[in-house]
Amino acid sequence: MGIHTFFTSLNDLERIIRAPGRFKFEEHNVAAHSWKVSQYAMLFATIEERAGQTINWKSLYEKTINHDFAEVFIGDIKTPVKHSSPELKEMIAKVEEGMMEKFILTEIPEEFQEVFFDRMKEGKDDTVEGRLLELADKLDQFYESFAELKRGNSDPEFAKMYRIALTKLLNIPLKASVDYFKNVMLHDVMSEETAIDVQEITRQVLGDK
Amino acid sequence: MGIHTFFTSLNDLERIIRAPGRFKFEEHNVAAHSWKVSQYAMLFATIEERAGQTINWKSLYEKTINHDFAEVFIGDIKTPVKHSSPELKEMIAKVEEGMMEKFILTEIPEEFQEVFFDRMKEGKDDTVEGRLLELADKLDQFYESFAELKRGNSDPEFAKMYRIALTKLLNIPLKASVDYFKNVMLHDVMSEETAIDVQEITRQVLGDK
Amino acid sequence: MGIHTFFTSLNDLERIIRAPGRFKFEEHNVAAHSWKVSQYAMLFATIEERAGQTINWKSLYEKTINHDFAEVFIGDIKTPVKHSSPELKEMIAKVEEGMMEKFILTEIPEEFQEVFFDRMKEGKDDTVEGRLLELADKLDQFYESFAELKRGNSDPEFAKMYRIALTKLLNIPLKASVDYFKNVMLHDVMSEETAIDVQEITRQVLGDK
Amino acid sequence: MGIHTFFTSLNDLERIIRAPGRFKFEEHNVAAHSWKVSQYAMLFATIEERAGQTINWKSLYEKTINHDFAEVFIGDIKTPVKHSSPELKEMIAKVEEGMMEKFILTEIPEEFQEVFFDRMKEGKDDTVEGRLLELADKLDQFYESFAELKRGNSDPEFAKMYRIALTKLLNIPLKASVDYFKNVMLHDVMSEETAIDVQEITRQVLGDK
Amino acid sequence: MGIHTFFTSLNDLERIIRAPGRFKFEEHNVAAHSWKVSQYAMLFATIEERAGQTINWKSLYEKTINHDFAEVFIGDIKTPVKHSSPELKEMIAKVEEGMMEKFILTEIPEEFQEVFFDRMKEGKDDTVEGRLLELADKLDQFYESFAELKRGNSDPEFAKMYRIALTKLLNIPLKASVDYFKNVMLHDVMSEETAIDVQEITRQVLGDK
Amino acid sequence: MGIHTFFTSLNDLERIIRAPGRFKFEEHNVAAHSWKVSQYAMLFATIEERAGQTINWKSLYEKTINHDFAEVFIGDIKTPVKHSSPELKEMIAKVEEGMMEKFILTEIPEEFQEVFFDRMKEGKDDTVEGRLLELADKLDQFYESFAELKRGNSDPEFAKMYRIALTKLLNIPLKASVDYFKNVMLHDVMSEETAIDVQEITRQVLGDK
Repeated sequence: MGIHTFFTSLNDLERIIRAPGRFKFEEHNVAAHSWKVSQYAMLFATIEERAGQTINWKSLYEKTINHDFAEVFIGDIKTPVKHSSPELKEMIAKVEEGMMEKFILTEIPEEFQEVFFDRMKEGKDDTVEGRLLELADKLDQFYESFAELKRGNSDPEFAKMYRIALTKLLNIPLKASVDYFKNVMLHDVMSEETAIDVQEITRQVLGDK
Repeated sequence: MGIHTFFTSLNDLERIIRAPGRFKFEEHNVAAHSWKVSQYAMLFATIEERAGQTINWKSLYEKTINHDFAEVFIGDIKTPVKHSSPELKEMIAKVEEGMMEKFILTEIPEEFQEVFFDRMKEGKDDTVEGRLLELADKLDQFYESFAELKRGNSDPEFAKMYRIALTKLLNIPLKASVDYFKNVMLHDVMSEETAIDVQEITRQVLGDK
Repeated sequence: MGIHTFFTSLNDLERIIRAPGRFKFEEHNVAAHSWKVSQYAMLFATIEERAGQTINWKSLYEKTINHDFAEVFIGDIKTPVKHSSPELKEMIAKVEEGMMEKFILTEIPEEFQEVFFDRMKEGKDDTVEGRLLELADKLDQFYESFAELKRGNSDPEFAKMYRIALTKLLNIPLKASVDYFKNVMLHDVMSEETAIDVQEITRQVLGDK
Repeated sequence: MGIHTFFTSLNDLERIIRAPGRFKFEEHNVAAHSWKVSQYAMLFATIEERAGQTINWKSLYEKTINHDFAEVFIGDIKTPVKHSSPELKEMIAKVEEGMMEKFILTEIPEEFQEVFFDRMKEGKDDTVEGRLLELADKLDQFYESFAELKRGNSDPEFAKMYRIALTKLLNIPLKASVDYFKNVMLHDVMSEETAIDVQEITRQVLGDK
Repeated sequence: MGIHTFFTSLNDLERIIRAPGRFKFEEHNVAAHSWKVSQYAMLFATIEERAGQTINWKSLYEKTINHDFAEVFIGDIKTPVKHSSPELKEMIAKVEEGMMEKFILTEIPEEFQEVFFDRMKEGKDDTVEGRLLELADKLDQFYESFAELKRGNSDPEFAKMYRIALTKLLNIPLKASVDYFKNVMLHDVMSEETAIDVQEITRQVLGDK
Repeated sequence: MGIHTFFTSLNDLERIIRAPGRFKFEEHNVAAHSWKVSQYAMLFATIEERAGQTINWKSLYEKTINHDFAEVFIGDIKTPVKHSSPELKEMIAKVEEGMMEKFILTEIPEEFQEVFFDRMKEGKDDTVEGRLLELADKLDQFYESFAELKRGNSDPEFAKMYRIALTKLLNIPLKASVDYFKNVMLHDVMSEETAIDVQEITRQVLGDK
């Protein structure tokens, strides 16, 4: 009970593997994922700031660092489930919220409960920081699926995951960031040799718009 | 689509790790777990048959082989969740059921849908075969947690898991099997050298009864 | 000594890796393999029953669940050895049999020795259940090698394993099952994208007949 | 070349294992470590702020997120080396700095070079944020070695690592944080059952002060 | 076919795990084992040479480097099998010999066949080099089982393996080496903290002599 | 302290992974690498001897067995570092040398210090044995990168590693060995099916000469 319990639970997230059950050439844990999301957000927030947006950096980093903490309670629910059922997605969100509340009330000392409630709440809101989190989270899904396709993973789930992540990325209302991703970074991504034809999927998604 | 898709999904269960997120000296996947449960059930059904019960062997083995197939959809939900919230447990059961129904209607050829609905339904009912499944499933939890405690895993979750599994085991209404477990097997289990004092926990559980 | 020792030895089979020594994108253990074989057998026995055969379901499942238990004694002897030398194959079979006998007489309580001798004997006999075991066992070899070829494993051993498994599958005297596999399932298998040209090998095997 | 290359290199840090070459019951990668350090820093910065310090949160999080990025170039140099030779430690620091400079000038687009130079420079300076980084980094070493000792890792390197981390932690000039760690958290840590006597080492370190 | 095939087969030995099927805190492959055996032999041959023996160094190193190459054909047969049945041990030796002969005649170019027959033959003969190989091979078994016992592996197989290895070590007819091991090294080994009481087993073995 | 410490440190090299930080389909440790290098050297020394060279076999095997022992101190520094900076390479060599000296003076009993200094010194000198070590070491880099390219690893680092290793191999002043490698073995290597076009890279390197 107490902060020691909380700190110990962080270690649990190193053992929660993303996209459980699928064959993957490389596995990723939720702790490392959260770090990469923070790194992506750092760069795109810089781009947005230069484009004139005001960034609440404290909020941004706390959103990215904490956004998947709730997976410590129920793990990374399999992707196809999330894709195929909005009711289930919502139900899972509710369960996570309930577990989180119980965890904070039980484990976190009273003096810190308020900050925990604030920091651990769903971060993907309509603020610029919420959108940057959404962008960075989708970008990691983009990179994870791209890496599998590049190495020849022919499980159709990864092509689907790539297609969905890319589509969502391109539609996030952060003009400067999406432009940079689409016009600069995507070019570099597409110039890589890949075992499965990622260029074709990418062109399809770009054409659909 | 079709039986090939079903057979391929069996492979997915080799990648679903039980008790995700906890530190374990040895990991177990759901496919191997299902096999061990079938083996335990084979022995205890023999004991029950000798004690005069009639066993529907076909039903017994189909229950044990299929009992965790639904984890292919949402994975092995973390144990503490299952322990701490009956509503969540029920909610998860409902989700799994819905996913299973959808899977059968989408992937399984019409001619086999009926047998699949029959075989994949919740197996832990009040028949002797349903009870044998419950016994065998709990016994694997007993063995998994025992092995962790024996090797010195001091995560309190495993002591809790051991205690709960043992308590449930001793209360399953299969007199001959529970007697054999309690009077013969438990003696052998307790004679093993263990890093954590499992004998003490066992005595507490036995005394509580 | 006793049933506890037997149950513990089941855990050992989770650590026996199939096809040891070869590079594989994904490893499979003997416990999970035995479970998948039971699943395949369940489906093909249903097909045979509908085609008019009488199935002894108890015998079928006990054959599939137990068929590789003897590997607990000497492990999964490397495949090329089994392929290249019939004398060695026989010698190994004899050693396994001896080890099994010794194990039953030493570890299994007298009251269960007879059932163990019966259940652990070589299952691939000329009964319909023995043939279903042979079919299901070869099907898992077919799927394991197919998955490696699909992901681009160019070790010639896997192409050879695929070719041998497919050839044997097509010649098992279970008309309804082999027809279903050949006319329905194989079509789905062949429609998958694969890194190595599995279709070509398949056509060669089909043409040879 | 470009941000895509930088983002790809983040993935490399998921493959850099901390304390390479030592036997460990659990491995940790540099990406996940950086995330845990950010989490620890978030809490202790809250404590410091409540104690009256002004926190530059943007700087704090950028320090924690980036502090080990340079390991992408030369890996996690083995701990005993770092412990035993200050010259070597400095030499390694110089090499990392040179590699970092080269990386930024070669891979990062000109428009971002300045922010990268700023964010990637050594973070452990005398500011409150630099000290919080030092505290959080040492705390992770404390937790990693504690977890190994708890599970019975008798490699003397981990007892040494624990002793050094604890000693350094207690001497960081952040009064409120160190008090909280020493008076509240350490009590919880010490109440855990451990295979190796961590309490004794802890008492020794506390007594030395 | 040819030396390339031989060189490729060396890689296979990196995938053959020693003592397959047992739970181990750390796994060892046959390639790394062969290297450690060569290192041990280098030291004890130095001791023997100083004690007046003439060492054929070329033969010594070729014996140690090659002594387990035959495991590429049938893997590391499980230890209990080797311990419990001399007939089986001999049968396995014969099979390996046959496989080796076939391999050399099929894969190795004619010009090298003679050297291969010479280098790959059973190395544990009555020469001083053969005895040094035996000593070094047993020493690795001693160290592997010691490390498991030290970390708390309570599988009785490892205590048995330790006892057998130590007993055999002490009886190898290489006086200077055995004296050094017994009087100098064993003292250091015994001064390590261990989870399982290795000192007691060691004293029993020493007392038996 | 003493030979026991030295023997224990050999085990550490089983945990030092080559080319850390890169994605690899198969990992190799330094212990297994040292063994393969000894095997390659054994064959090429035979070729050189037949071509009229005098081989000091004791020196040859001691060079190959010991050549990477120093990695026990600082690990396998990432390949790109070694490729990109000669000063760094030298600096690292100096550090390793210093660590080795300290290790021998601290850990090795005085009576063995001289042999250790002799055996552990840099082995790649201008003797025929030094050149055979260089050849064998590069050959393992050639095989490791070849295996990755064959399985479709599109990380450009491996194509670069293959190109550099092949170029260096062809220029080692050991005429008979290089001729055998180039005229006999390379033909077999090139006839393998590979996911990435290794033949093209090979032809480029051969044409450059």
